[in-house]
Amino acid sequence: MVIVGAGFGGLQAARALGKARNVRVTVVDRYNHHLFQPLLYQVATAVLNPSDISAPIRTVLQSRNTEVLLADAKSVDTHRKVLVVEGGEIPYDSLVLATGASHSYFKHPEWAEVAPGLKTLEDAVRIRERVLAAFEAAERESDPVRQRQWMTFVIIGAGPTGVELAGALSYMTRHAMPKDFRRIDTREARVVLLEGLPRVLNTYPEELSERAKRDLEELHVDVRTGAMVTDIDAESVTFGNERIATRTVLWGAGVAASPLVRSLEVPLDRAGRVQVTPLLTAPGLNDVYVIGDVAAVAQRGKPVPGIAPAAMQMGRHVAKTIRCRLANKPLRAFRYHDKGSFAVIGRGYAVGLLFDKWRMSGFPAWCVWAGVHIAYLIGFRNRASVMLNWGYTFFTKGGRDMRLITGNVLKRMPALAVSLQAPAVSPAPPARPELPASRPAPVH
Amino acid sequence: MVIVGAGFGGLQAARALGKARNVRVTVVDRYNHHLFQPLLYQVATAVLNPSDISAPIRTVLQSRNTEVLLADAKSVDTHRKVLVVEGGEIPYDSLVLATGASHSYFKHPEWAEVAPGLKTLEDAVRIRERVLAAFEAAERESDPVRQRQWMTFVIIGAGPTGVELAGALSYMTRHAMPKDFRRIDTREARVVLLEGLPRVLNTYPEELSERAKRDLEELHVDVRTGAMVTDIDAESVTFGNERIATRTVLWGAGVAASPLVRSLEVPLDRAGRVQVTPLLTAPGLNDVYVIGDVAAVAQRGKPVPGIAPAAMQMGRHVAKTIRCRLANKPLRAFRYHDKGSFAVIGRGYAVGLLFDKWRMSGFPAWCVWAGVHIAYLIGFRNRASVMLNWGYTFFTKGGRDMRLITGNVLKRMPALAVSLQAPAVSPAPPARPELPASRPAPVH
Repeated sequence: MVIVGAGFGGLQAARALGKARNVRVTVVDRYNHHLFQPLLYQVATAVLNPSDISAPIRTVLQSRNTEVLLADAKSVDTHRKVLVVEGGEIPYDSLVLATGASHSYFKHPEWAEVAPGLKTLEDAVRIRERVLAAFEAAERESDPVRQRQWMTFVIIGAGPTGVELAGALSYMTRHAMPKDFRRIDTREARVVLLEGLPRVLNTYPEELSERAKRDLEELHVDVRTGAMVTDIDAESVTFGNERIATRTVLWGAGVAASPLVRSLEVPLDRAGRVQVTPLLTAPGLNDVYVIGDVAAVAQRGKPVPGIAPAAMQMGRHVAKTIRCRLANKPLRAFRYHDKGSFAVIGRGYAVGLLFDKWRMSGFPAWCVWAGVHIAYLIGFRNRASVMLNWGYTFFTKGGRDMRLITGNVLKRMPALAVSLQAPAVSPAPPARPELPASRPAPVH
Repeated sequence: MVIVGAGFGGLQAARALGKARNVRVTVVDRYNHHLFQPLLYQVATAVLNPSDISAPIRTVLQSRNTEVLLADAKSVDTHRKVLVVEGGEIPYDSLVLATGASHSYFKHPEWAEVAPGLKTLEDAVRIRERVLAAFEAAERESDPVRQRQWMTFVIIGAGPTGVELAGALSYMTRHAMPKDFRRIDTREARVVLLEGLPRVLNTYPEELSERAKRDLEELHVDVRTGAMVTDIDAESVTFGNERIATRTVLWGAGVAASPLVRSLEVPLDRAGRVQVTPLLTAPGLNDVYVIGDVAAVAQRGKPVPGIAPAAMQMGRHVAKTIRCRLANKPLRAFRYHDKGSFAVIGRGYAVGLLFDKWRMSGFPAWCVWAGVHIAYLIGFRNRASVMLNWGYTFFTKGGRDMRLITGNVLKRMPALAVSLQAPAVSPAPPARPELPASRPAPVH
């Protein structure tokens, strides 16, 4: 059998089949690593390292019956039963499509360039680089209007990704960064969170949305609901009658399923997902399973959410179905067990639902969230390193050494280089106000 | 005063002046981080994280009298006493140039594309990516000749960088990687080290060169001395009458000083370095100091080596000179204290000279090397994380989670995608031999 995509769904399916003697598994992915996507925003906000939240697929899947292949899947030929990849074809008897989703820019693909989304490690590193570089530019800039523009950050979409990014970004500017700069006060940075719907975290109960909004505002995030964005360019974002001058726009809205499933020629929903059967197969294709964010599954009239635990349950269910089929045992329909979902607002704050029943918020919700995430992280090393980094960040108000721009950002962002004015760097006294006395003195 | 470059030399000068009340320091660098270059090869060979060996310059230099500026220095106008950067000018009273060196491709700049050198974090990440991707391609490849080509690695230049890269690469293919692949045996990878001179590590005593060569050969590195490379392309390296088919060539030869010092219009040596006065100033320019790898300093007829301790001593000496000048105290000529230099051959093996007298090799030399490097690493967090990673690597025969290709390497290296053949991934029994019984069984 062939599994496409080594995210949460694909990896669980491969692991659950790793001990089966009568099955050979080939896992195809275009990246060499499995990514713990729920913590991606912490890489983007310079709290964690890329390697803290990823593990080489080959290392995770070392069963003798499992092969891993770095390849870009292009389409599925269901008649000939082959997966077409760049440069070749892979025949399958059963196929599991677990290729995930990316953000949807609705009808504005041109926004992708100015407003990057957060789905891959590359995205996270690029966002980190843009945010850090914006402060570097603000420090160089002598014109206060343009300085303000560099220090304004707009995040579009107040789902979990947008909320977590906004909270972490605001926290970073207020706690981890102020001591690093001489001419700007990073605590004056403005973080704006725009949401087209009437409330943040709209899949959560209304009460938790309210709480999340309040907590974000306490973290100095400017939350605007009912704000439909009509234009984005390199210098601003427009919504309603308002225009915000900014150099950094981040995108966390919409869901678009991976385009690979289009080649199945089965009905798709508006987000491009396959409406699967109770066995998680594509309609009319008994040997093609579709799981995770590319599958649209409804249960008691409610859609199963596009989160990691749901994808993992689907992966395990497909493995079970395949084993039952080989053993001629009866098959069972997929049932989603909702263990809960959480969104982090800031350091020590979260909101969420445990077992789809108990509403939690504040520090207790954060503790549940942190415990679950550490427990789920794959591989001992990752866990130790994440705990080290988190512990350090928690006790020092922001990590020191992750604020790393790997490359020559001046080459990649030419806009950074044009704003320097001689007076901005002449030996004048520091322009920014003193830090309050309660904060530790700068390290000498 | 203005310091250009926050490497070992520039950083020491800035730190030594950080407490002086009567001095204002502006540090200019085009990267936002200080890099611990001696361990760069461990990032390239997937043992350490980029953030393990780097620290944001702003975090390291938090003195109130010190400003940090992300800017690309273009030239020095010594008549007007300004440093010209992209987008502006910075006036100086004293200037310290500590912009370092890169590799020299002699008269073949076109080789830079096919044979990347190792000087920046970006270089290290790119080399890691190329090496890991080569094994992915070999696993996909069905043609044995082309498979062999993907599994051949040529390193040009047997100075410390080349020796360390070759040893670490060979170790990785033999200890960290074999369990990850099904169709290839990574232990069959061929690592070739080419050196134009008659021996490896030619600045070391002959006896240590011999020992290093023997140790490398024990690690299965194919060492070829007296091998002048005449051609490199995407598929091969030619030297003498021989041509090696390879997809991965790494460059560790030659030294070329940063071109910024050319604008000083003072005499340069063949490597483009400034032949400085005993006060480390450029000849005829009392207020322009040149230190580290851009300075050519001779002592008792021997050149001061281009290594971190030498640059740090020069940085501290310049700080002292500037303070003495401000206090009208007598100035002293620079004297280099050789505390030693070491080159690592492999896990637990090194060769080196302690205090320019005592020759060391093997495990004792490695212990001295490791201790010195951990002690010098700047900042507590880095040190803890490096120790964690090293400890883990030491006890598990190679780290697990650093073998990370951050991005979509298939897009960046189109050559990877063309070699897949259907039989290479059909469900056939594994082609490679069993691992010897003495090795631990694969983890399930």
